[in-house]
Amino acid sequence: MTSRLDETAAGVFVIAVTPFRDDGALDLPGADRMVEFYLERGATGLTILGILGEAPKLSAAESAAFVRHVLARVAGRVPVVVGVSSPGFAAMRELTETAMDEGAAGVMAAPPAVLRTDDALVGYMHQVAEQIGDTPLVLQDYPLASAVQLSLGVIRRVIESVPSCVMLKAEDWPGLGKISALRAMAGLRRVSILTGNGGLFLPEELQRGADGAMTGFAYPEMMRDVVAAHRAGQAQRAADVFDAYLPYARYEQQPGIGLSVRKHVLARRGAIPSAALRRPFTPLNSDDLADVAFLVERQARRLAALG
Amino acid sequence: MTSRLDETAAGVFVIAVTPFRDDGALDLPGADRMVEFYLERGATGLTILGILGEAPKLSAAESAAFVRHVLARVAGRVPVVVGVSSPGFAAMRELTETAMDEGAAGVMAAPPAVLRTDDALVGYMHQVAEQIGDTPLVLQDYPLASAVQLSLGVIRRVIESVPSCVMLKAEDWPGLGKISALRAMAGLRRVSILTGNGGLFLPEELQRGADGAMTGFAYPEMMRDVVAAHRAGQAQRAADVFDAYLPYARYEQQPGIGLSVRKHVLARRGAIPSAALRRPFTPLNSDDLADVAFLVERQARRLAALG
Amino acid sequence: MTSRLDETAAGVFVIAVTPFRDDGALDLPGADRMVEFYLERGATGLTILGILGEAPKLSAAESAAFVRHVLARVAGRVPVVVGVSSPGFAAMRELTETAMDEGAAGVMAAPPAVLRTDDALVGYMHQVAEQIGDTPLVLQDYPLASAVQLSLGVIRRVIESVPSCVMLKAEDWPGLGKISALRAMAGLRRVSILTGNGGLFLPEELQRGADGAMTGFAYPEMMRDVVAAHRAGQAQRAADVFDAYLPYARYEQQPGIGLSVRKHVLARRGAIPSAALRRPFTPLNSDDLADVAFLVERQARRLAALG
Amino acid sequence: MTSRLDETAAGVFVIAVTPFRDDGALDLPGADRMVEFYLERGATGLTILGILGEAPKLSAAESAAFVRHVLARVAGRVPVVVGVSSPGFAAMRELTETAMDEGAAGVMAAPPAVLRTDDALVGYMHQVAEQIGDTPLVLQDYPLASAVQLSLGVIRRVIESVPSCVMLKAEDWPGLGKISALRAMAGLRRVSILTGNGGLFLPEELQRGADGAMTGFAYPEMMRDVVAAHRAGQAQRAADVFDAYLPYARYEQQPGIGLSVRKHVLARRGAIPSAALRRPFTPLNSDDLADVAFLVERQARRLAALG
Repeated sequence: MTSRLDETAAGVFVIAVTPFRDDGALDLPGADRMVEFYLERGATGLTILGILGEAPKLSAAESAAFVRHVLARVAGRVPVVVGVSSPGFAAMRELTETAMDEGAAGVMAAPPAVLRTDDALVGYMHQVAEQIGDTPLVLQDYPLASAVQLSLGVIRRVIESVPSCVMLKAEDWPGLGKISALRAMAGLRRVSILTGNGGLFLPEELQRGADGAMTGFAYPEMMRDVVAAHRAGQAQRAADVFDAYLPYARYEQQPGIGLSVRKHVLARRGAIPSAALRRPFTPLNSDDLADVAFLVERQARRLAALG
Repeated sequence: MTSRLDETAAGVFVIAVTPFRDDGALDLPGADRMVEFYLERGATGLTILGILGEAPKLSAAESAAFVRHVLARVAGRVPVVVGVSSPGFAAMRELTETAMDEGAAGVMAAPPAVLRTDDALVGYMHQVAEQIGDTPLVLQDYPLASAVQLSLGVIRRVIESVPSCVMLKAEDWPGLGKISALRAMAGLRRVSILTGNGGLFLPEELQRGADGAMTGFAYPEMMRDVVAAHRAGQAQRAADVFDAYLPYARYEQQPGIGLSVRKHVLARRGAIPSAALRRPFTPLNSDDLADVAFLVERQARRLAALG
Repeated sequence: MTSRLDETAAGVFVIAVTPFRDDGALDLPGADRMVEFYLERGATGLTILGILGEAPKLSAAESAAFVRHVLARVAGRVPVVVGVSSPGFAAMRELTETAMDEGAAGVMAAPPAVLRTDDALVGYMHQVAEQIGDTPLVLQDYPLASAVQLSLGVIRRVIESVPSCVMLKAEDWPGLGKISALRAMAGLRRVSILTGNGGLFLPEELQRGADGAMTGFAYPEMMRDVVAAHRAGQAQRAADVFDAYLPYARYEQQPGIGLSVRKHVLARRGAIPSAALRRPFTPLNSDDLADVAFLVERQARRLAALG
Repeated sequence: MTSRLDETAAGVFVIAVTPFRDDGALDLPGADRMVEFYLERGATGLTILGILGEAPKLSAAESAAFVRHVLARVAGRVPVVVGVSSPGFAAMRELTETAMDEGAAGVMAAPPAVLRTDDALVGYMHQVAEQIGDTPLVLQDYPLASAVQLSLGVIRRVIESVPSCVMLKAEDWPGLGKISALRAMAGLRRVSILTGNGGLFLPEELQRGADGAMTGFAYPEMMRDVVAAHRAGQAQRAADVFDAYLPYARYEQQPGIGLSVRKHVLARRGAIPSAALRRPFTPLNSDDLADVAFLVERQARRLAALG
């Protein structure tokens, strides 16, 4: 029995990549291995078809097939959020229906780049809510990718007027002040706040009141351990773990080749059969591979020293 | 037997709206009436699923159904171009296959807004050509909507290196200098150039070497008559016709409510059963409707005086 | 004795060009002729150092010299507004002080493109007001040039909280709905609304409650006559005059070469000694010049027929 | 005797902040202390009036005064580069003349955001070169701030056609592939490449062929030591040093509050008398200050352990 996402969601929701075969075909069997990899390393939830899940590169039929396959594999062990952002409501509604029918816990959406005023943004989220009914909704605030700036006022108005909005994916870069301000807003319904940006500000975000991470960093155990140390009140320990991963995390978070780096490392770790991306993408060259090898080797040594 | 689009395409390709019922459902029977309306008023081609055809608001299944229906109704009487711009290649390829299987003459695509350098833009169009094979391709240059600037150098490189690119939809605003420069480029393969922007610069564009219009102005007879006068060498006559429509054409070309105005007038003219747009859209208020009535009435008087 | 700009400002504020000599030097004597030209053709105010006055191309010293010279020439005959938008407040304050010391009626400012949320935009205008004290302020809403979207809510908040804001320069394209909505806002202090965009929607804007035009169209008599007909309740007459100028007005309003066209026509009309622009600019070619000659000749005939 | 910047420039050019007094006035005596601070900690050059030097917030007169003061204080001990990017050429030329007259080694400029095509960008840099003559020129490639994408082809064309361009400030994020590609371009004149982005990718950038850093990180000794270790072939040592600073460097590199953080730390370190920024800026709150204290304390411990 799958539960629906609600305001208490916390921990580590890993943004899953979408595995492809070397020939570019969707690799559904590969997704099985990936699901187990994430769950074994501390994922308390999964998010699929996010921007860094190459969602826009799938056809509508492929998206639906991927959603069905992953939900069947997860089989209710953790909640699964499905990214449904789309240029049009028809596609958004269709994918939402498929996802919820198959047992997803909720969906995630971001306003499109063309909207620029507070009213337009709030109005858009109202229309989203009309389209998807009472499906639990994650509001994605990701200006670097979406070119949309969601002010505190907009987020507040969405939380106040869209009861199905149970979570904010906070990915303003890094938006520490935004998290503090939301947590300090008198009278505002408390929603879950999970943070993105490859985890690059996770210790500070937790300190400000975030409930965990929702990002695709190739080492979910970093997020798991930082969240655990934070909950245990061990700030120095959280920073020690975080710092050990930071040099590589910074490298994975590059725009451009970042997703290629992430898939390369996930393939090396056995999480997915192939590091292939669908076009268009920026391939890694020998310099990039040497950088990654250098960083991963140093990371392993440092983690060993840390114990 | 439908012919494939080639470099000789000329005249008036009307960008068709997509008819919806008042409840927002796709109105396929309504599309029949619309097709006849356009053909009776001088369309020598049709373009469907363009940006102002609300293409992004359709689901993949709806897009395919609309393409099939319109192509069956047109039945080869005029060439039909299908807009296939999409955030991902899988969807683009799928829609292209449907379109060409059903008898489309070619497809139209624009590079996405995230691309910013000449090399990235040319590279993208190469990837498009790889995806759709030798399907006749219309390159859309529409910076106001796409936020992409296609320089002369980029257009030249695409024409030189993508043999299937047979047409430029010139919609840089208004890009008169661009048309002149393309026509003057020594050694460049001549492609068809049809122009957009609601026809607001059609006389000047024809003068610079454009082969006609590809736009959705609600009075296709304006484009038909301006093109005819231009071909007959009657520049003053072309300007007289154009000027008679200009006050309303300017009003229809507004961002925001423009498409609502166009559908309203098309419904008034009996081209489509309902003026309904899919959400999100900007509705007309009573002031807007009064403006349109005033402009259309003046236009009718002036056309009558013109003879 | 020069009066300060207030909420009752109305009529035709011409956005003045900045005259340069052929060698690119600022042409202060040329500005004298220009001032007289505008005043003789119906300007009830002038705006200098606007975006289409090539303000960013002047050094700080040149801007100050130009402001002094024009204000001395105008000598209080009409109110003069000075554009003071600047990347920094130090330059804005300096130019404002010069302008007001020399007898300007007020200043005009637009928020910078980097601001994206309602709060950021309102906050910016508060800081402007802090910098310039009680200097009468024109809020410029010009998204096509500034890439900033000022929502109705933002404009309302600025009017409510910045008492020195006495005018909105409405240049959203065309923003008819915005003007209607502002005029209908219960309890909102009435400010002057003058409209831009080359006058391309002037009749409709006046109908919605605008008080006149603030734009640089090379035929100020068009704005004068349309405003006069509107005030006399003669909507058909206003449209007749407007329509006669529209084909050329549309051509002058092109991005890119538009300002070159305007200066060319102003030089032909004897308003300025030279049509020179400062670099960077897009020069006119022989096709452009032929277009302008064709349009201006037709305009003259039509105005003659109109009487 | 001050030398002019040339293609051999290397090492650490610190982007200097601009010191203000608590009341917002320019603090010229404060600049003396700052210059010494930077030179004592390994700066082999200085860059003033960069974007993160709050250059746009100064009036033209203040900019000139600051340039004069800093150059007099430096007195030829290291080369000084002056940022001269400006919306107009008149201001750019004026500031360049002041800078070179007073002994600057060269100037730095970036194309404005409105330019979008390769030809427009190259053409702009040609116009810059016309304006400033043979003044040594640093081409700034900083898309995150400028919204301009300089492709490899554009950079190549500028280097080939503008002989005075002796340096690229590489701040594409992080643009590792760009540096590799530039260094591998056959037949291209070798220019200096210094890198920005707060130093967040310095080890990898040096590995790819960069000659050093040009950025304002509050601990110039990090850049000095990483560059030295790199030159000595000690990659692990370079990474050890870099990693020790990375947690704080990441925090300082935040958009929004980043510059406030930097000035706060510089003031704490005694580099400048006051951490004041000119408006508009984002102030630090107690959470931010606690984060910084936590990070700086850990950094000190780690550096001590490193030896």
